[in-house]
Order: sequence, then structure tokens, then C-alpha cells
Amino acid sequence: MEQDEEAATAGEDAHSQLMYRIERPVYDENLIRTKLLHRKNNSTTLRQRLAEKFQCSSEKAKAAVLSFLPILTWLPSYPVKQYLFSDVVSGLSTGVVQLPQGLAYAMLAAVPPVYGLYSSFYPVLLYTFFGTSRHVSVGTFAVISLMIGGIAVREAPDSMFYSIPANGSNTSAVLDVVARDARRVEVAVVLTTIVGIIQIVLGLLRFGFVAIYLTEPLVRGFTTAAAMHVVISQLKYMLGVKTQRFTGPLSAIYSVIAVFSNITHTNVTTFLLGLGCLVFLYAVKVLNERFKKKLPIPIPGEIIVVIVSTGISYGMSLSEGYKVDVVGTVPTGLQPPALPDFSLLPNLITDSFAVAIVGFSMGMSLAKTFALKHGYSVDGNQELIALGLSNFISSFFQTFAITCSMSRSLVQESTGGKTQIAGFLASLVVLLVVVAIGFVFEPLPQTALAAIIMVNLLGMFKQFRDIPSLWRTSKIELAIWLVSFIASLLLGLDYGLLVAIAFALLTVIYRTQSPKNSIMGHVPDTGLYCDVDEYEEAAEYEGIKIFHSNSSIYFANSELYVNALKEKTGVNPQHIQAARKAKRKHKHKESSPVKMYVKYEDEAVTHEVIPLNHVVEEQKNGQLKDNCQESSSDEAVSLQPLAAVHSIILDWTAASFIDSVGAKAIKQVIKEYAAVDVRVVIASCNRNLLAELDSLQFFTGDMATDMVFPTVHDAALHCQRLNSQPPAAPTGETSPVTEGESRDLTS
Amino acid sequence: MEQDEEAATAGEDAHSQLMYRIERPVYDENLIRTKLLHRKNNSTTLRQRLAEKFQCSSEKAKAAVLSFLPILTWLPSYPVKQYLFSDVVSGLSTGVVQLPQGLAYAMLAAVPPVYGLYSSFYPVLLYTFFGTSRHVSVGTFAVISLMIGGIAVREAPDSMFYSIPANGSNTSAVLDVVARDARRVEVAVVLTTIVGIIQIVLGLLRFGFVAIYLTEPLVRGFTTAAAMHVVISQLKYMLGVKTQRFTGPLSAIYSVIAVFSNITHTNVTTFLLGLGCLVFLYAVKVLNERFKKKLPIPIPGEIIVVIVSTGISYGMSLSEGYKVDVVGTVPTGLQPPALPDFSLLPNLITDSFAVAIVGFSMGMSLAKTFALKHGYSVDGNQELIALGLSNFISSFFQTFAITCSMSRSLVQESTGGKTQIAGFLASLVVLLVVVAIGFVFEPLPQTALAAIIMVNLLGMFKQFRDIPSLWRTSKIELAIWLVSFIASLLLGLDYGLLVAIAFALLTVIYRTQSPKNSIMGHVPDTGLYCDVDEYEEAAEYEGIKIFHSNSSIYFANSELYVNALKEKTGVNPQHIQAARKAKRKHKHKESSPVKMYVKYEDEAVTHEVIPLNHVVEEQKNGQLKDNCQESSSDEAVSLQPLAAVHSIILDWTAASFIDSVGAKAIKQVIKEYAAVDVRVVIASCNRNLLAELDSLQFFTGDMATDMVFPTVHDAALHCQRLNSQPPAAPTGETSPVTEGESRDLTS
Repeated sequence: MEQDEEAATAGEDAHSQLMYRIERPVYDENLIRTKLLHRKNNSTTLRQRLAEKFQCSSEKAKAAVLSFLPILTWLPSYPVKQYLFSDVVSGLSTGVVQLPQGLAYAMLAAVPPVYGLYSSFYPVLLYTFFGTSRHVSVGTFAVISLMIGGIAVREAPDSMFYSIPANGSNTSAVLDVVARDARRVEVAVVLTTIVGIIQIVLGLLRFGFVAIYLTEPLVRGFTTAAAMHVVISQLKYMLGVKTQRFTGPLSAIYSVIAVFSNITHTNVTTFLLGLGCLVFLYAVKVLNERFKKKLPIPIPGEIIVVIVSTGISYGMSLSEGYKVDVVGTVPTGLQPPALPDFSLLPNLITDSFAVAIVGFSMGMSLAKTFALKHGYSVDGNQELIALGLSNFISSFFQTFAITCSMSRSLVQESTGGKTQIAGFLASLVVLLVVVAIGFVFEPLPQTALAAIIMVNLLGMFKQFRDIPSLWRTSKIELAIWLVSFIASLLLGLDYGLLVAIAFALLTVIYRTQSPKNSIMGHVPDTGLYCDVDEYEEAAEYEGIKIFHSNSSIYFANSELYVNALKEKTGVNPQHIQAARKAKRKHKHKESSPVKMYVKYEDEAVTHEVIPLNHVVEEQKNGQLKDNCQESSSDEAVSLQPLAAVHSIILDWTAASFIDSVGAKAIKQVIKEYAAVDVRVVIASCNRNLLAELDSLQFFTGDMATDMVFPTVHDAALHCQRLNSQPPAAPTGETSPVTEGESRDLTS
Repeated sequence: MEQDEEAATAGEDAHSQLMYRIERPVYDENLIRTKLLHRKNNSTTLRQRLAEKFQCSSEKAKAAVLSFLPILTWLPSYPVKQYLFSDVVSGLSTGVVQLPQGLAYAMLAAVPPVYGLYSSFYPVLLYTFFGTSRHVSVGTFAVISLMIGGIAVREAPDSMFYSIPANGSNTSAVLDVVARDARRVEVAVVLTTIVGIIQIVLGLLRFGFVAIYLTEPLVRGFTTAAAMHVVISQLKYMLGVKTQRFTGPLSAIYSVIAVFSNITHTNVTTFLLGLGCLVFLYAVKVLNERFKKKLPIPIPGEIIVVIVSTGISYGMSLSEGYKVDVVGTVPTGLQPPALPDFSLLPNLITDSFAVAIVGFSMGMSLAKTFALKHGYSVDGNQELIALGLSNFISSFFQTFAITCSMSRSLVQESTGGKTQIAGFLASLVVLLVVVAIGFVFEPLPQTALAAIIMVNLLGMFKQFRDIPSLWRTSKIELAIWLVSFIASLLLGLDYGLLVAIAFALLTVIYRTQSPKNSIMGHVPDTGLYCDVDEYEEAAEYEGIKIFHSNSSIYFANSELYVNALKEKTGVNPQHIQAARKAKRKHKHKESSPVKMYVKYEDEAVTHEVIPLNHVVEEQKNGQLKDNCQESSSDEAVSLQPLAAVHSIILDWTAASFIDSVGAKAIKQVIKEYAAVDVRVVIASCNRNLLAELDSLQFFTGDMATDMVFPTVHDAALHCQRLNSQPPAAPTGETSPVTEGESRDLTS
């Protein structure tokens, strides 16, 4: 009662009057099923439910059309006066960023720059019609572009395109760059078609949830590795060094070695120009961030770099005079649609899945962020379909796969973009350049584009800070981050992603298999139970062990569960049985030559109440020791009852499912304990799990529903009472129910 | 009160007096941490614990030696008078079975029969020293032998050993059987060495637990597929048809096709002899089972078949006269030890893992069965080491990998085997045959061995009965069985096993991701809560939704959890927010052109108590409908409070772990609800999970520990009270606490 008052005083302001009061008989599952709870008979049959699901109606059809073409929902009610000006400003700003990024990311994708411009036009336009996110800017994205580049180079390596010069001279073969690039475009385009198809199909099948397997630490480790790959791939452009492009496992390392072994061939002009761009872009980035509030629109550093460096390059004839690599031919106008070359399909199908899923999950996470910020919702499956259609249709016009870009989306949102109209206008800006003035970018040095790519990825390297913070919060998630990073860096983005996903899933298995097992004690007068090893107030009932494990019981951990049960409770039926046999032999013939391998040292077990924890310790030690000597305790064995623990309560609060292996293991262990007169009951088992046990035919034979209790407290009261009843209580001091718990038995 | 009495009457015999009675203030986590529970400071540091673990002492050293060489424990106290006779009888009987099985399984392993005899001697002898199981009979085993055979044939296919005859004639090339078999023996031997090393290392690393991933349905599906493979592989011997041996995916199908396309070449003598053996063995099997009790030892059908068919074959010169395939050369005596050819290692390493793990798990499951039956315990890790050492050492004497055989172990146990001595004697029987009379088996027809193999595997086909029984008990486990069976049948045993394990692990992920979500209601006067959709008695508190999900909250299901929460409670913050915005606009300017995409139909939400479920239904429907028309309910919106639900209780009873993604999602959803004035509290969260939340820095910012309650009932009482306090209760009828729950507030 002291405690009651103390607690009451403590919570005086909020809890002074509020009492938790329950007074009812102790229930077991048998009673619950027969008297207390009645199952509703749910009258809807499977057929009815199916019928309901597949029922067709004009309303449903209308809703389906609207959800497929979201533009029909929002465009008719577009508030022109309110939104149009912001959307125009935002659209133009975004378009100005799309342009240099398109050119730059085409380099990552290993295709000529103009294809980057195509990819910044068609899909962006299409997303306006199908997308549900109002703030993301779809288009080229570094990680996806790099993945495409890796695949394109793998399928069309330089080595395939060396041809002996026509004049038959014996000099070294010449690389046919035009044929190579054409082939790489073909690969990128057909990959994009397949990616689109995969995304559409996943969306139609309502498989938008696959992105959930890309947990945040995984994605961050993966994108950090991708950023490393990108920077490594751009080093050669920055330095103006010519090396081959590597793909596959360890390509990052080969690339670094190749660049550094050629570092003496650095083109100084290229390097200085690139460095200048890099410093300028970084400065602009810092300024934009610092004066976010004061600037009406961010300074368009990228387009400035493009224009200025194009101007310098043209003015000084960098390409001819200083051997600086430039963008080269940019054909004006769009290309007619063409059918992708599907013969490449078998080689690309797995890569396509990787690109499709990475692309979608990047896009979706951005879309969700903005939706939360602005209070609307995006439909994951429709987003998949929107991205898929954008990729699929565009691919017929020679684009490579796209998704949302974080940096560009931030520009679009911060410059006041309100709806998909902004994205639409951005695509028109790109279109204008493509059809009218694309050729002006021809003298643009590649090193400037490399600088743009690198600065855009600087933010991703901040993700290295995850390592110390994850170290503090969750070691498992740190492991996922590191595995994802290292695997993606070393094995390449495709296999790396696969390894990372497999690892992340295995951590879930690991978590279910490394539960925390504990012996619970009750906190007097509260009905609460907690770990006796951790909390001072937790007290065990005499002769009752309450075993808690925070996991489900299924094939991969049923054995661990049973072992932990025997170890934690300190009561091992095999040992008791062995001790009993020894006792029996000891009685029958005085000097039996058989020694038991392991003996249960039960001489330490007494019926005193106070040093219970101490007793458990000794029981444990006794069990762990393999004492083979004929101990003097045999006499004691025959005098003392065999186990001081008469009941074990399995606290299944945390168990959410069970399978046949688990059920068998539990059944088995209950039988084993029954053989040595220890009663095992199940407590706090949720009703779904009870239903599973029913369908596994658990409650047959010796198992009955009256050994299941709705709460641990019910079970504890029951066990206390049962033990004190039929054979007179072994010691006088034990009252049937402990003092604090039910002081008032006469109800 | 009626219910109390009713329940009390029902359980009169056992529960008449026993009451569950708790009376205490309502606790929240804040109070618990500050006042109620005090964490013990566990004084043992990590270093101390490590020191304890790695402490060396003579006792520990002795225990280690004893556990490594169990024979030192049991042999000194071997009760000669009691046990020896039984062990001798059992050993001889088992040896008589070892012999034909050794010959037969060598055929499966694609090596000459004498190697089967070696494998029935050395490892069996060694196991006597290292094994802890007293009843299993180690030695050749069909499934393992078949796996070895597959690998041996893959590494040394017939095609490698065709040589042009020396005379240079242009006739077809001749198969060099001797060279082929020698190579296959090399492969099998080095495989066995690696298997042994793997098993020893796994045992020393205490990795015996890996076998737990081989859940029962998986193993049964796998062994059924293995039995199919074995029978298919024996068809050609039964029929006397000559076909090549296939390996790899779809080999089973190719084999069947090959045999049936050659069925016209059936050797009638071979077939009739095989059929005779088959019928005889089956009859013996049936007799042995029926007269189990009456027969002192089982009829040794296999050795009878071997002797009789050898006699017939010799007497009638079946090999020469009728072209019946016979065993052929059986060299007398043992071979000197030789170093395996480790150059094969890279090709065999993955196969070795499969053989090592399958072998161990077969052996371990048998050993556990017998240990349970006879009341002793086996040590999984020592068993691994014992099998590993048996395989490793024996492999230097040209054996192939072994494990325990079920059929033979049953013979050993049923004929009275008491200890490992029986196995030891069985190995001596084999030794005797090898060194003295091996040559007598030379005329033994292969078809007789095929019959022995087939009859031994008949039992495994009974496992097809699992399919209907699993269908009734657990669909998921049926899926594991079928995937394991089909994958192992079609892809081969190695890849099949891999696919099956991966699938079994994915089912665990699936289970954690497809939780049962429900809204809980309280059962009056009990403090118990259960699903309102399923139980008639469950009643909801007014304005409070209790959301239960039986799963942990981590990356792969946090989104599902949040979606289910919004759907099940029928309260979606986005919709409420949208409705509020609409209301605000409606007030500010009378005819706004903006239509909301989705509107929350809260005109249906009232504060009446009775039709609560009904209200939820309407809320749900309202939310699902995409109604875009300017409804007349806008007026109602501005009059009614926005949500009838003021509190949501997250029942985390079943949650056993959480990760950063889960914690963020929960934090986010709590904020979203807070923005629309719905209070979210967490109930029944176990203390380990609370510790995880602490380390994830969950309780920062707006999150405080006073929103966590030890039980759902505490949380419900708290929410009821809070709502009824500061702003006067919206309707008069709602008392702060419901009637039944705490009738006696004046404490």
C-alpha cells in the first residue's frame, strides 16, 4: 500500500484520481472460449468478397481513369491567377538546370550529350500527365545514369569497335567511336524500354511496396557508393586523361589505378578549367544555401558555368589549340521514333530490374518527402506507372532511363513550383534548346560537365556522417549501411544492391532469432511483470518461473527457444530425469557402476522464499558443470523433492506467429516437463496465435485449453493456487496467493 | 457484475475463490521510470565477462577433452554384464545391413562397390570414439551418396574418358571405365575431405545451429525429391538398360526420358531378377513391421537377397550367359592411406557445404530423436565434430561422405543396441568381409542392389501424405514443402536446397510483413482487449481507437503499419487537413475554385456513443470515395468538430523490435495526428523495445515518455480522462470513465 500512495503522490497533478482497478475471476482459455468470448460469424463469404472486389461500376471505372491520368483531376481546377506565375518562374529555373545536367549525365550514361537533352524533354513532358507528385522534377539522375553507363559499356566495350584502317597499313587499329556510341545508345534505349515495362507492370500489379525493402541505411550506403563511382568515373574527364571505362566487380579500383597510372598525361588546361568550374560551382552552392531566404531564385551556377566555359572554349579554340575534350557534335532537332532492338533483352533483364527499382525508390522517397511537407498524398503505384510510362514511351524517341533528381526537385520547389505545370515548362525550355540552339554547346568542355556532376554529388558524401550516428543508435543498421556501401562500391551497383537487399533481409531473420530471453518477476501490487535481472522491484513467485522471449516461435528459433527456456529457468527435465534414475538405482543396489554424464545438483534447491535468485544461480551453475564424480549429494537427492520449481509460465506476449515446428517443440517440452512433474502453462498469447495453434492441432492429447491464460498474472495466480491445493503444500509458510496480490480473497 | 458471477459459477470447481484483483494508479512510462522501477546496475563489465569466458583452468581443460572424446566418459563405466550381450547382437545385425547398403550406395555415389565397404568401415569405427549418440548407425546414406554421385559424374563425365582404340581403327571410341571410375573416386574422396573439414570447423565455431534453417517441411520435401532422384537413377539398373548418367538442372527428366526411350533394350533376366528381389524385400519389410514384437531380431532381408542373388548369379553365370550387369572386381584388403587431390577444391567447395549441412542435419535429427526416446542428451556441436572427423580421417583411406542412416539406426536400436559399441562391432563385421571374403560379391547382380536401394526409400514416399495434412494446418509450410520438393527435383539437390532455404527464410519475412491488424475493444470488467471485428463482447471506448498489429515495426513494414493504422482507425490526418483547409477557404471567400482531391466526410461523425462501429464504417467509406463534387456538407464541416476520434492507442504488445526507419515512421505519424488534434499514445510496449527506442533517440522533441503506458488499459483510462478534462466534454452523456471499468473512483 505504501507504493500505491507513493505513486499516487507522484502523479498528483494528472493521475491523482485515476485508478486502474480490475476485479474478476482468474480466466483460462477454456473458460474464455466457453463463457466469455463469442466469435462473430462473419457472414461475408470468400465469394462475396471477391464479387465485391471485382464488381464493375461506372463510378469505379471513372475513379480508375482519374487515378491513371491524374492530370484530369487537377488541371480543370488549376487556379491560374494564384499558381501560374510561380509555376512559370519555377519551370524556367528548373529548365535551366535540366539543360546542363542532361548534358553531363549523358556522359555518365556513356552516350553522346544530345541524348541527355532528349531524356530531359520527353519523360518530363509525359510525367506531367501521369504523375501524382506536384513538386518533384523528373529527368536525368546521376545514379541511374551511371548504372546505365556501366551496362552500356559492358554490352558495347571499346574492344568491340577497333577496326583495321582501310588503307591496310599495319599500324594500330582505330577505335570506331561513332559505331561504338551508336551501339551504346541502342543498349541504353532498349534498357530504358524494359525498365519502363517493368515499372508499368509492377505498378499495375500494385507492387509499389517492393521499394520498402530498400531501407534508409541501405539506400544511403548505396547512394554514397554510387557517388564514389560517379566521382571516380569523372576523374579522367577532370584531368583530361584518356583511359578505358571499366565495368563489373572491382571496376572502381581498376578505374582509379588506370587514372593514376596515367596521371603524367594530365592535360593542364583541362584540369585548370575543371578546377575553376568546380570552385565556382561550390561557391555558388554555398551562397545559395546561406542566402536561401534572401534570394528570390537560386543563382543558376550550372548554366553560368556552361555558358562561360562554352564561351571560353569557343573563343580560345581550346579543343584544337589545347587538346581539351569538348562535347562535340550536337545535332539540332529531334529524332523520329524507332523500335528498340529487343535482341539485347536476355542480357539486360536483371540489370533492368535493378534500374527500375532503384529509379522508383529514389523517385518515391522524394515524392513522399514533398507530399508530407505540403500536405497531399502521392500514390505509390501510380508513381510507378507514371515513371514506367515516361520511360517506356520516351525510349522510342532515344532517351535513357530517368527518375526524380533531388537537387533539381529542390530548385523546382524552392523557386515556387506549385504543380506539374512547372515540370512541363522546364521540358519546353529543353525542347527549345534541342530544336533551336543545341549546336552552341558543341565547344563546351567535358571537364566543365564533370565539375557539374561532382558538385551535385557533394551532398551525398555527407552521408558518411551516418556511420558515427548509426554506431550510436543501431549497430544492425550500421551493418546494413556498410554492407550496402562496400558491396556497391566493390561489386558494382547492380550486384551491390542485390547483396545489400539480401543482407538487410537476413538482419530481420537474425533479429527474430536473437531474442532477449528473460525470467520475469512481478512488481508487487501492479499486475506488471518485468525482467528480474534488470529491475530491482521485480520479484519471483516461489516455485514459479516466468519465461519471456521477445520473438515468435518458428523453425529457425524453436530450438533456441527451448534451450533458452531450460537454461534461464535452470530446470532441465533431462537432468532431473537423470538424477531420478540415479536415485532409483541408488536405492535398488547400493553400488551401481553407472555414472551419469551430467547431474542436476538439486541439493541446493530448497523451499525457502527469500534467496530465490540465489537458488536459481546455483541451479544454473549446477547444470552447467559436467560433474562426473560420484558426489555425496546422492543421499540428499533421495531426501529432497526433485525440483523446487513446480510451474513454468511461458509468457507469449511477444510471439506473433508459430509454425508446426515451433508447435511441436513446445508440445515436446511441455511433455518433458510433465514427466518430471513440472507444470508448464502458456500466458498472454494473442488470439491470432491461438487460432494458429488450433489449426496446427496443438490442443489435442495432453494439451488442453485450460493451460492457456489471457495474462501472465492470471497464469501466476492459477499456478500458485494449484500448487497449494491438492497435495498439501510442502512447506507451511507458502500461502496459496502471495500477500500483496489479492489481500481480499473473500469476494 | 452479472458477468462476474456467471464466470465465477462456470469455473466453480477450479476457480471459485481465485480472483484477479488489481487496484493501482494508472501508470505511464514517465512515472514508471522515475518512481516505480529501478534498473539494477549490473556490475560485470564486458571485460569481466570476456575474462570469465576465456578463463583457463584445469577443470575446463578436462571438460574440453572429455567433450571432445566422449568415449573417455562412457567407456570406463561401461556395464559389461548388462550391456555387452545386447550390443553384440545389435552390432552383428547392423553389420549385416551395413554390408549390402554399402555396396548399393556406392552405386549411387558413382564409385565401384568396394568403396562403399570402405565407407561402411572407417567412419563407423571413428564415430565410436567421437560420437555422443548411442543409438545412431553412421555409414553410407542414400541422399548423401546420390549427391556425391551427382558431383562425381559432373566432374568426371563419361565424355572425358572416350579414347580411340590403340589399333587406330575408325570404329567408335571406347569408354575407359577404369580411368573414369578412378577419377570419380578421386572426386568423391576429396569432396569427403572438404566436407569433413567444413563439419569440423562449423563444430568448433559452435555453428551447429545452422541445421535449424532446415525446417521439417523443407527437409521432408527435400528428401522426397532425393528419393525420386534415387529411384530414377536406379531404373536403368533394374531394367538393365544402358544410358548415360545426367547431372545438373532437369537431370531427373533427362534420365527418365533416356531410360524410357531405351526401354526396348530391357534385359529381361535383369528385370525379372530385380523385380523378384524387390517383391521379396518388400514382403520382408512388411513382415518385420507386423511382427516387430515377436521377432527377436528383424529378418535380414537385404543380406539374404545379396547371398541368394549372388549364388544364383554365380551358379547360372548370369553375367556371361545373360549379359546381366554384376558388381565386378572387388579387391580384397584395405588400401594404404593417400593424400586427396586438392586441385579439385575450387569446383567442389559449394557442393561440399551442401553435403556437409545435409549430412549433419540428417544425423542430428536422428540423434535427437533417439536421445529424447532414451532420455539422454546429444551435443550438436560435438556431433558435427564427430561426423567431420569421421569423414576427414576416413577420406585418406578412400571413403566417401557418410552420415547416419535412418533404416540402419532403427535396426541397431531395435535389436537392443545400448551404446556406441554396437556401431563398433558393425564396423568390424564390414572389415572382416573386406579383408577376407569381399571377392565373393563379384557375381552379385546390380539389379539386386537397385532393389535394395529402392525398398529402403519406400518410406520416404510416404512423405507425400504431408501435402494434404499441411494444407489443413499451414499453407506457408505447405509452400515450403512444395518449393523444396520441386526445386530439388528439377534443379538438382544442391541448387534445390539453396532455393528451398532462401524460400523458407523469405516466408519468415513475409510473415513479419503480413501482420493481422485489428481495432481492439475492451471486454467489460476484465481488462482484456480483443478484436472488435471478431468478438461480440469487445466494445470500443468512445472517441478512442486501439490499433493492434501483431508484428514488429521495421523498415520492410513500417509503411504498411502506418497505412493500416490510417485505414483501420478510419482517421487519416491528410484527409482531415484537407477538409480543414477546405473549411477555412469556404469561410474566407465564398466560392473558391479549388476542389480538394479527396475529402474527409466528417458530417457523418457524431458524438453519439451507440453506433460507433457504424461511424467507423462511414468514415472509412468517406475516405475511400474520391468525391470531387462540391458537396453540400461543407456547411456541416464548419459546424461539426473535425474528428470524433480524439485518441489513438498503438497497442505494441506484439512488437519485439524496431529500427530507425520504424521509429521515424511512428514519430512522423504521431506528428501528423497531433497536427489534427488526435492524440496518439503507445501501450504495452515491452521494456527491451523501450530501450531500443531510447537508443534511437525516439523520446526527443515532442515525444515524451508520458505517452507510453505499460498496458492498453492504462492508456485507455488515461485517454478517456484527458479528453474529459480541460475543454468541457463535448456531449453530456460521456462520463470521464466508462461505467463498467471503475465504478469506485473515490479511493
